Amino acid sequence: MFSGHNYIGFTASAKGRNKIKSFSTILGDHLPEEFTSASEEEIKQATEKAKTAFERYKKISAEEKAVFLETIADEIIGIGDALIQRAMLETGLPEARLTGERGRTVTQLKMFASILREGSWVEAVIDPAQPHRKPLPRADIRKMLLPLGPVAVFGASNFPFAFSTAGGDTASALAAGCPVIVKAHSAHLGTNELVANAIIAAANKCNMPDGVFSSLIGEGATLGQALAKSPHIKAIGFTGSYKAGTALYKTSVNERDAPIPVYAEMSSINPVLVLPGKLENDLVKTVAHLAASISLGAGQFCTNPGLLFVINDGVTDEFIKSLSEQLAAMPQAAMLSPVICKTYYEGRKKIVQEKGVKTILLGEDAGSSYKGSAALMEVNAPDFIANNELQNEIFGPTSLIVKCIDGSELFEALQSLHGQLTGSVFGTTGDMNLFSDCIEVLTEKVGRLIYNSVPTGVEVCHAMVHGGPFPATTDARTTSVGAEAIKRFVRPVCFQDCPEEALPEALKEHNPLGIMRKVDGNYTRAGIGETM
Amino acid sequence: MFSGHNYIGFTASAKGRNKIKSFSTILGDHLPEEFTSASEEEIKQATEKAKTAFERYKKISAEEKAVFLETIADEIIGIGDALIQRAMLETGLPEARLTGERGRTVTQLKMFASILREGSWVEAVIDPAQPHRKPLPRADIRKMLLPLGPVAVFGASNFPFAFSTAGGDTASALAAGCPVIVKAHSAHLGTNELVANAIIAAANKCNMPDGVFSSLIGEGATLGQALAKSPHIKAIGFTGSYKAGTALYKTSVNERDAPIPVYAEMSSINPVLVLPGKLENDLVKTVAHLAASISLGAGQFCTNPGLLFVINDGVTDEFIKSLSEQLAAMPQAAMLSPVICKTYYEGRKKIVQEKGVKTILLGEDAGSSYKGSAALMEVNAPDFIANNELQNEIFGPTSLIVKCIDGSELFEALQSLHGQLTGSVFGTTGDMNLFSDCIEVLTEKVGRLIYNSVPTGVEVCHAMVHGGPFPATTDARTTSVGAEAIKRFVRPVCFQDCPEEALPEALKEHNPLGIMRKVDGNYTRAGIGETM
Repeated sequence: MFSGHNYIGFTASAKGRNKIKSFSTILGDHLPEEFTSASEEEIKQATEKAKTAFERYKKISAEEKAVFLETIADEIIGIGDALIQRAMLETGLPEARLTGERGRTVTQLKMFASILREGSWVEAVIDPAQPHRKPLPRADIRKMLLPLGPVAVFGASNFPFAFSTAGGDTASALAAGCPVIVKAHSAHLGTNELVANAIIAAANKCNMPDGVFSSLIGEGATLGQALAKSPHIKAIGFTGSYKAGTALYKTSVNERDAPIPVYAEMSSINPVLVLPGKLENDLVKTVAHLAASISLGAGQFCTNPGLLFVINDGVTDEFIKSLSEQLAAMPQAAMLSPVICKTYYEGRKKIVQEKGVKTILLGEDAGSSYKGSAALMEVNAPDFIANNELQNEIFGPTSLIVKCIDGSELFEALQSLHGQLTGSVFGTTGDMNLFSDCIEVLTEKVGRLIYNSVPTGVEVCHAMVHGGPFPATTDARTTSVGAEAIKRFVRPVCFQDCPEEALPEALKEHNPLGIMRKVDGNYTRAGIGETM
Repeated sequence: MFSGHNYIGFTASAKGRNKIKSFSTILGDHLPEEFTSASEEEIKQATEKAKTAFERYKKISAEEKAVFLETIADEIIGIGDALIQRAMLETGLPEARLTGERGRTVTQLKMFASILREGSWVEAVIDPAQPHRKPLPRADIRKMLLPLGPVAVFGASNFPFAFSTAGGDTASALAAGCPVIVKAHSAHLGTNELVANAIIAAANKCNMPDGVFSSLIGEGATLGQALAKSPHIKAIGFTGSYKAGTALYKTSVNERDAPIPVYAEMSSINPVLVLPGKLENDLVKTVAHLAASISLGAGQFCTNPGLLFVINDGVTDEFIKSLSEQLAAMPQAAMLSPVICKTYYEGRKKIVQEKGVKTILLGEDAGSSYKGSAALMEVNAPDFIANNELQNEIFGPTSLIVKCIDGSELFEALQSLHGQLTGSVFGTTGDMNLFSDCIEVLTEKVGRLIYNSVPTGVEVCHAMVHGGPFPATTDARTTSVGAEAIKRFVRPVCFQDCPEEALPEALKEHNPLGIMRKVDGNYTRAGIGETM
């Protein structure tokens, strides 16, 4: 069923010497299929094919690209249950979750198809010529977003579909007009092969250029670095660890003739303010909500709430006790990989030894069966503020409660926070007023601010921001989820006094695409000099 | 008339030990006034004040910020002729040019004021809640752009107004809601002080927070690096040399806990395709156009056309001869500073010794009087392609002609080009068709593509892109001129289920600002659930 090969564009290829096997934390053993690491030569071929493919792919119409994305979605669904079963084996994630995630992946592909058809995403801006302007005439200047070129995508272990081979980075890069080279995640190589097959099949059906997509197998330190250094790669989409993400980022700046954008989503502990009025009024529901979020998917979400800020008052002890009991009662779930499982238990062991950290709950070490047990710790705000180590992500079902004596200590603690994907506020209207300065500080630290809900669960929509200040990501100016993700893989280019026949469709005089444009600073779908 | 002090917010301060004087290339001597370098402590104070000011400034209304920008413009005009006279002494630029540049600076400030009043630049996107959606309800998610925080601005020697103290970077950062710390350019310290005075006066009149603007004096290696490393600085706007720009860029990535965006505009040689049909039909006008552009302002423009590609045919020799004659006839003009003048003549000396480079015109070395004389060189395409040194910017009135035997050699030469701010095409309709593949390659290398005109002269408008792939800039995804420059100093933040009263004005239900928003993916100025 699995060939174990790389895709160098349309060509299946397996010339490397290293073989890799996926590990199943459910079976507690390696899966039998062997996958072949890409050789240096194969990596080079893939980047060269991507560069050549770009010359044709960037000129393909929005409609054709939309159909390509939709065909990928259809092909993925077409794999059927075999895809879900393989992903279950490779990730340990349950069937319902994976079925849902496949649905999200398909939704993302279709969302970008519809964005391409609507067309306004290219941000066309036109300042028509003013030949009679004094003292100097104004030239005709027209701007739009154009694709950067081939993009290297590094998939995530915890989202084998939605953030991997045909995930958000791939979908948005292909939508933007950029060929994609995926570095298959070593934890789900079979899943990658099935999805890569689907993309290649779709590319063939849709007559896309050879090289519009490649899938390469290998380790981050070799394959990853080779891609980051390739002159043909023009941007990187990455989801994973702080260490790997910053390594790619630094390579892209320090070891290339021309640096490229690196969109690495890395490390976030997603602070939650659990405010006093809310606990007073709504303790039971708040605890249930948080316990479910902390333990969801064995805590293996980039939006897992790893930090809970409370004001130490009459109900705090009850809150902590209740949360601890609910977490203890949660069933242990399989973790994604032996490395993630080991790192989780090591992280727990380390943090409980930090100054001032008190253990509330420390579920048994189920590392031998690759399962994650919940943990809950607490620390006082001054110890939290003094110790950066307490802000390291511990990827798994655990959270650290930070006890503050009052709002001003909370304010100070929040000021010491590193950048985050999300921040959540559980509070009544009274809380919101009382702690408005704290909420303001939190807003500066995050990409998404959530009121009275947990951070897990990221909606794929137009307004979503799944990003945030470093170290949550390497580029807070962007999002990796939602419609705006396409903007990561483009740059603006303006055309001055360009003849009508040489202009891109989006910038032509009569607006043949009917897109929203800004003309002389005003939004309009009319052609130049026309009214709607 | 000049105090020589720094501005730490509203406080004039001069505690450093080093004194600097501006040099006048017109007088051939240092100007008498002493300016005091900022001490380490003063630099720290300025960044702390900027951080504190940000907390208030980010909440100030768009209208108040607009009035602030307009008041800066008025205060600059209010300085009167003294500003022009001082800038003439310090830069050697002629009066008419400086008067025009002052007008542009004022225009820029007013343009950002009008962008703030219109308000749609914040890119508000709203996906209203869908409480009845199956299988899961959708939360209410609303996104907009928010300011990054204090910005350090490094002014340019060649635009003492429009790219310096109150130039485009300062105007766009202040408009975005970010306090600004300007590193005064050492070549025009008096000009900086006059403009800084104007900004401080405007800030006081408009009741802006102390620290919304600071002006610091010092060298790039000390002051510049200190600003790039400061935890309070959240972005950098820079215009200057490749060496200084990349130094700031690498510091921002490698020597900070949290990297920040660096928008450095550095090195561009602005290739021009001079196509055969155009020369056949319109040689005289084309030559006049190019000669004027190459020698404009002693060639000291980032958009100076430093590279002319021709197809070697019957009229090429006439073109070269005529261009050389016209350049030789251009009057020598004062250069901006002794360093720039020295670097120019060194650059010329170096390039004429490179393999295959033939000197067409080498104006006398007028370095002793700090004047720039024109130069023209030629090289064959294969030698150009083989030698990266030929793509180094030589800042001054010189250009290198690259002779190609045919379109395919031209295509190859263009493929070897580094990133550029601009690319220009002089061609007839026939040329455009014949060389369409070359124009396509050129488009990939530039931020602005110009048809039948020279690259010098950058319009301040909505559609302008003054940016381009590395090494033209460190971030091709942005522009430093025009309306979109404001986007460099913001990041998107989304609010999930945020109570109406806590939402920013731009995201409120009934759209009180009347801005263009995207609601459920559709552009509208209507409130949620309303129709216009």
